[in-house]
Amino acid sequence: MAKKITSRDKDYSQWYNDIINEADLAENSGVRGCMVIKPYGFAIWEKMQSELDKMFKETGHQNAYFPLFIPKSYFSKEANHVDGFAKECAVVTHYRLKNDEENGGIIVDDTAKLEEELIVRPTSETIIWDTYRKWIQSYRDLPILVNQWANVVRWEMRTRMFLRTSEFLWQEGHTAHAKEEEAIEETEKMIGVYSDFAEKFMAMPVIVGKKTKSERFAGALETYTIEAMMQDGKALQAGTSHFLGQNFAKAFDVKYTNTEGKQEYVWATSWGVSTRLMGALIMSHSDDFGLVLPPKLAPFAVVIVPIFKTDDEFDRIYKLSLSLKESLKSVGVSCKLDFRKTHKPGWKFAEYELKGVPLRISIGPRDLQNNTLEIARRDTLEKSIIDMDDVINIIPKYLDSIQKNLYHRAIDLRKSKTFETGDYNEFKNLINSGGFVYAFWDGSNLTEEKIKNETKATIRCIPIESDKFEGKCIYSGKSTRIKVVFAKSY
Amino acid sequence: MAKKITSRDKDYSQWYNDIINEADLAENSGVRGCMVIKPYGFAIWEKMQSELDKMFKETGHQNAYFPLFIPKSYFSKEANHVDGFAKECAVVTHYRLKNDEENGGIIVDDTAKLEEELIVRPTSETIIWDTYRKWIQSYRDLPILVNQWANVVRWEMRTRMFLRTSEFLWQEGHTAHAKEEEAIEETEKMIGVYSDFAEKFMAMPVIVGKKTKSERFAGALETYTIEAMMQDGKALQAGTSHFLGQNFAKAFDVKYTNTEGKQEYVWATSWGVSTRLMGALIMSHSDDFGLVLPPKLAPFAVVIVPIFKTDDEFDRIYKLSLSLKESLKSVGVSCKLDFRKTHKPGWKFAEYELKGVPLRISIGPRDLQNNTLEIARRDTLEKSIIDMDDVINIIPKYLDSIQKNLYHRAIDLRKSKTFETGDYNEFKNLINSGGFVYAFWDGSNLTEEKIKNETKATIRCIPIESDKFEGKCIYSGKSTRIKVVFAKSY
Repeated sequence: MAKKITSRDKDYSQWYNDIINEADLAENSGVRGCMVIKPYGFAIWEKMQSELDKMFKETGHQNAYFPLFIPKSYFSKEANHVDGFAKECAVVTHYRLKNDEENGGIIVDDTAKLEEELIVRPTSETIIWDTYRKWIQSYRDLPILVNQWANVVRWEMRTRMFLRTSEFLWQEGHTAHAKEEEAIEETEKMIGVYSDFAEKFMAMPVIVGKKTKSERFAGALETYTIEAMMQDGKALQAGTSHFLGQNFAKAFDVKYTNTEGKQEYVWATSWGVSTRLMGALIMSHSDDFGLVLPPKLAPFAVVIVPIFKTDDEFDRIYKLSLSLKESLKSVGVSCKLDFRKTHKPGWKFAEYELKGVPLRISIGPRDLQNNTLEIARRDTLEKSIIDMDDVINIIPKYLDSIQKNLYHRAIDLRKSKTFETGDYNEFKNLINSGGFVYAFWDGSNLTEEKIKNETKATIRCIPIESDKFEGKCIYSGKSTRIKVVFAKSY
Repeated sequence: MAKKITSRDKDYSQWYNDIINEADLAENSGVRGCMVIKPYGFAIWEKMQSELDKMFKETGHQNAYFPLFIPKSYFSKEANHVDGFAKECAVVTHYRLKNDEENGGIIVDDTAKLEEELIVRPTSETIIWDTYRKWIQSYRDLPILVNQWANVVRWEMRTRMFLRTSEFLWQEGHTAHAKEEEAIEETEKMIGVYSDFAEKFMAMPVIVGKKTKSERFAGALETYTIEAMMQDGKALQAGTSHFLGQNFAKAFDVKYTNTEGKQEYVWATSWGVSTRLMGALIMSHSDDFGLVLPPKLAPFAVVIVPIFKTDDEFDRIYKLSLSLKESLKSVGVSCKLDFRKTHKPGWKFAEYELKGVPLRISIGPRDLQNNTLEIARRDTLEKSIIDMDDVINIIPKYLDSIQKNLYHRAIDLRKSKTFETGDYNEFKNLINSGGFVYAFWDGSNLTEEKIKNETKATIRCIPIESDKFEGKCIYSGKSTRIKVVFAKSY
């Protein structure tokens, strides 16, 4: 049935693009590096947003909105941040166009030049901390627990849909705290929220860990990450949470009066996930037949396709399906009916397979007779005949089983491609064939860089959950207690 | 109690700014014309978004996302559109910054100049129709019913928070249809959705009508509008829906094959509302004591403030309030508890009055004894003692009554400031004193412009619901059947 999907074995990268195209998720636009997120793709993102937003609010956060533009000078205020961020950016220099009297069309009006250029936000720490200065006077104003859903722009030279685009959608949490411990606790809490979301909703197992110094966010004292393995064994950084210390408070002069009446700098965190998660979702579960979606993030969990010859059959199946849809709604299952007469059942089956709809129900004349229907699972492609009267009980169980199966399949894949070694030659072979390799590391930037240059593997993270035995660095042979995960990555 | 709110009589414009400031809705940012929407303000906008989004989806629309940037040349393709839109825009000319070796800081890298400048979208017709060309081949691909929630930028010289800012948040619906009638029907349906939303959720009465030619959206054949009266008698355009004919289809060459196999241009609509609605909401209901919110859009409809002296009282009231909150939640009423010991009840009363919380509940030691509580309505400032056991029944009724009262108050205000005249001198006086003036108009641009120049009043709309009697134009004296609403406006 898979119409136009290149197999993973043949060309993994083309397979990824084919899925996005054939499942109608997104497409390139006329603007370099910027994508159009199509309705079906956006509906998945909306599901992600809605679940994450709930989790943020349950952990005490509120949403707000800060300007798209940031004055250039703001970026220079935090030394590390400027090096990390303000370079490959979209720069607004003018605020007016005019008619081109000579050649027709429109041209930039040179007389409308901005005094100070504006940067389209690549991330909002600077403008937000410039604002927090006005919000914070005393310990009573703390903590500030704010999140923003927004678009950001980073001028990427090589782009890939969802994974790396010049404009992308994300959320960025920015919190301010009186005490260092509180800020660290928040940083850890939010990486926990991300890891919960990845595992429970995306059915995507992740490793929670800390980034090495060289991989930290520009301006952070500590960056926590969740790292997921894609089906080709590469790692994908799926979310990060940063402990920013007092760096931005100092850069933007944000102090508070503590309970003893003394002025102190405020402690900060920031954390974010983006439409990159869409890429992670696609590459975690999909197969050579198309997209595979976990039921909890599918725009609709069930699709009903009728099989009919006569108008009478059509009418009876339609009536039945409407009531089925209502019953499923009452148990929290979203359901789409596709009764278009312009398309044949076979075409529809192929379409919803491509689109990864978790469960397909088909109802034909024989089902009407027998009071049954056929269900087909997208994850295993298995079909079963079930009794119509059991639908309300059975469908939620199937969906639950699909959600769990996808997670366990992903865990199994990760297990099969996760290794540990103390031998650098073996290490190089393992990295080459794709997968996560646990190994000891001596903690030096230089070692990290040499390994990266020689193998293209980076240290994905220093896992939170790891034993503290001593071992020998895979590269330098020095004794160390730091065990890390190496992998090639997206 | 009103701490820092200028009265409406004294200075209406300052009153508006004071409300925004004291109710913690928004503030100016370090970027000219761009605002920061603060958590409390954003929570109201989120409520609006959520209700509107539901209404859009119930009428068959899906969300999608299109690029922030639009190539300059796209704007030149639709002749009217370019004149209306592409002038006062933020223009991206470069994509990189570099360290300034001489003076420190960062400067624009001249070598990173874009071949074609990018415009930060002021509205997305052009990029969307450039995309629809790829989506539409046959009549089977139609209609396309898509909406986008996004930020847009129009470089405004004089800005006012929520009403006119350089960057604002909005939704823009863009639909494509096979038939002219369908597109017109969609245009009318969506202005109906806006009018329902304004009246049912914002408690804001609106007049639905068509714009005159000179006030139409750039590129539209017909623009429908909802016009609301603010408390100072000025009009505020709160939402528009445009029938775009085949203008954008022709500009971007979007054709479809009809059922007879012939190629035809596609018919279009677009429609939008923005964070401007926040300004409308503020000016519809608020008073000299602060913000007044309709219960359906309040971030929380009820706040509970405890009055206590002893720890024991505190504990008992707290326990009671928690269970009250749960009970209210079960009947769909959101409720905030403010048990901060750092602030006195009087301070809290003033705070929630400023913030427009529809109902305040206070519970003190006497209430514990009598099994009662005190409620205070924000709209009328009336207080009542109610029996604790009646809470679940009474609170929703109160909220319903507040929602209705605000709507009727606004209707009454509009009635008191709505006039009709056939005499131009009287007309000028009426316009001057503020309000809506119904009058006959001869349908000519020139007349419209002269009236505008002489009185500052514009034709807000040609109301949908109006009798078709003949009368004489208020300015030219010519016979006409067109009766319109004039007003000064925001």
